[in-house]
Amino acid sequence: MDEMPVRFAERISRTKASEIREILKVTQRPEIISFAGGLPAPELFPVDAVKKAGSDVLGEDGMKALQYTTTEGYDPLRTWIADRLNRKNGTTMNKDNILITHGSQQALDLAGKVFLDEGDVVLCESPTYLAAISAFRSYGCIFREIPTDDHGMVMSELEKAIEENENVKLIYVIPNFQNPTGRTWSLDRRRELARISASNNIAVIEDDPYGEIRFRGDDLPSIRSFDAVGNVMATGTFSKIFCPGFRIGWIAGDERIIKKFVLVKQGVDLQCNTFAQMTISKYLEQNDIDSHILVIKETYRTRRDLAVETMRSEFPENVRFTEPDGGLFAWIELPEGTDARVILERCLERNVAFVPGGSFFPNGGHENTLRINFSNMPEERIVKGLRIMADVIKESL
Amino acid sequence: MDEMPVRFAERISRTKASEIREILKVTQRPEIISFAGGLPAPELFPVDAVKKAGSDVLGEDGMKALQYTTTEGYDPLRTWIADRLNRKNGTTMNKDNILITHGSQQALDLAGKVFLDEGDVVLCESPTYLAAISAFRSYGCIFREIPTDDHGMVMSELEKAIEENENVKLIYVIPNFQNPTGRTWSLDRRRELARISASNNIAVIEDDPYGEIRFRGDDLPSIRSFDAVGNVMATGTFSKIFCPGFRIGWIAGDERIIKKFVLVKQGVDLQCNTFAQMTISKYLEQNDIDSHILVIKETYRTRRDLAVETMRSEFPENVRFTEPDGGLFAWIELPEGTDARVILERCLERNVAFVPGGSFFPNGGHENTLRINFSNMPEERIVKGLRIMADVIKESL
Repeated sequence: MDEMPVRFAERISRTKASEIREILKVTQRPEIISFAGGLPAPELFPVDAVKKAGSDVLGEDGMKALQYTTTEGYDPLRTWIADRLNRKNGTTMNKDNILITHGSQQALDLAGKVFLDEGDVVLCESPTYLAAISAFRSYGCIFREIPTDDHGMVMSELEKAIEENENVKLIYVIPNFQNPTGRTWSLDRRRELARISASNNIAVIEDDPYGEIRFRGDDLPSIRSFDAVGNVMATGTFSKIFCPGFRIGWIAGDERIIKKFVLVKQGVDLQCNTFAQMTISKYLEQNDIDSHILVIKETYRTRRDLAVETMRSEFPENVRFTEPDGGLFAWIELPEGTDARVILERCLERNVAFVPGGSFFPNGGHENTLRINFSNMPEERIVKGLRIMADVIKESL
Repeated sequence: MDEMPVRFAERISRTKASEIREILKVTQRPEIISFAGGLPAPELFPVDAVKKAGSDVLGEDGMKALQYTTTEGYDPLRTWIADRLNRKNGTTMNKDNILITHGSQQALDLAGKVFLDEGDVVLCESPTYLAAISAFRSYGCIFREIPTDDHGMVMSELEKAIEENENVKLIYVIPNFQNPTGRTWSLDRRRELARISASNNIAVIEDDPYGEIRFRGDDLPSIRSFDAVGNVMATGTFSKIFCPGFRIGWIAGDERIIKKFVLVKQGVDLQCNTFAQMTISKYLEQNDIDSHILVIKETYRTRRDLAVETMRSEFPENVRFTEPDGGLFAWIELPEGTDARVILERCLERNVAFVPGGSFFPNGGHENTLRINFSNMPEERIVKGLRIMADVIKESL
């Protein structure tokens, strides 16, 4: 290591570059068929409607849109979010239950700051979202991974972990179309998690960036909707249903806890982009976001169906994969002993990229897994790319 | 305290609401003459030019502007910032020395994450910027305040503090038109700080949100321009020269250290608003920001002159105040034993607000001080407000 002219915090030695972000740099070249990112389909962004909304906001109240605003966020937007969540989940929130965050990612970092001391234990799905691991790890926590199956986290294992670990401060879950596996929790598990966490006084972060993007089956109520005591906070974002470039997400929860998040956000970055908040709010006034979401869902469903069909027909029998009901990702398990990083190298030689699954396990292992994204590419490239992956896998096994 | 359904991190018990943000809530009423905020003059925001720039960005490359981008930031904007800093300071930076942050406030939080372990010592001016105290304190640091005079931090006191404290990890300073005092460091002190910090291997954060807003005298080179080893990082922002609502700032420094900031930002919020970065970049292409800054400077100079004149003629002899050469703030010291919070209460009864100075001292005390902002109000309200303050002060002494 270079000799540095400064001394860093201890945490820097345990901070690694996000493997995804590093792979994404390689995959900027247009000839690469990339299943690596988590990017929404840009051709669906409502560019003209954003242009109109932004222009109207500046025309009607430009001084306000370009000035500082409150840490909590733009009130009409907070109210819209609360109303929508209430309608979907039968809850009774208002704007004071909502803090606007810089994407749902920031909600995770703030959660780390609000809940985690050095040495605290975070219980999470195994595997779990890579950038949540980075966010929480920077607060010096320890991860205990809870086994999951096709219905979500296994509740008996969760209870065992709570019994066995003293400093459990946070349970982190992604119940809808999980990143990275694409799996969705059953209704029972949701209710059960709310009960178990409440009776143990443990905060829950229900990370829900993908919940709106369901292709098959019926929406399920959030874990937060079963929260009787106020210990469950749910994140959400406009990144997947509107656009990620604006970096506007939120965290919803008990007003007393949201106040702590607000306090912490004051020191972190004062507030979110005023113009972005007002423009989204104006867009929501001027457009029917549900019909926009419908177009996103139809596009992603087509791509997902094609991906699943191609994997079914092309992948060897001993390669397992998930068939998600929504979201952006599917998960592939190669036979034990296969190294997905080696497969990646060989795929890259043939201009195909994905993310090896090992990074999604905070405590390591599982190098035979990998994640693919199916939302970001036109249909023919999905088929072509998965065929190449299938060839490489067959050659390597 | 309410019984909470969750347990918080230890740091939450030492996190207080920003006094400014709380006062600002009170001062939303239009009849209030508020010297409390740090708001730029909204009537100077280039609303029409922003409208055009934003519209052009969406027209030319809307998909890119609304999509995710890199953590480092939008390259043309990073290059513009590096070039401008080079021109002003004679440095030789390029885009790799620049990370785009969510306002310069985020650069402070990231600096805390990069440098501070629990119990580390931060050396800062006494007084110093309130929200830097919050940002750093959340990492469990201890503040040692270094006495300052009209030329900046007293260097002999700085050296003494470095000798006396083992875990000094960070020196935090605001050399131009300091918040809260409005004071500016001399050239000698800048050079000297660079030397002392380098020879002691201590990171420096040179916080410079106001440097572009000088009314009197010549610009001075940054502390970073005297940095021979790479231990000085400088923040900057578009909030004061363009608009704060976009939340776009930066941190500039040694490329190896900027890489650590990038790593940390990945976990914090992935990246800044793509559209905001591209729109500022387009605005800079389409407009001459220097003539815009000139208008800001002239407006603020008029307001500052008026404020200083009014304080000179109306305040009692034993009230001292600074006469800033730039920036947004002046600092007032009432006679020892006077409580600025009591003065504030009486002023609020007469619809005038400011920020008591005690909060700007991380280790407390100095309750006889206060900060006023002179950038945000039309001239006649400045005079009226300061006359009321003078009356209240006279009645109270």
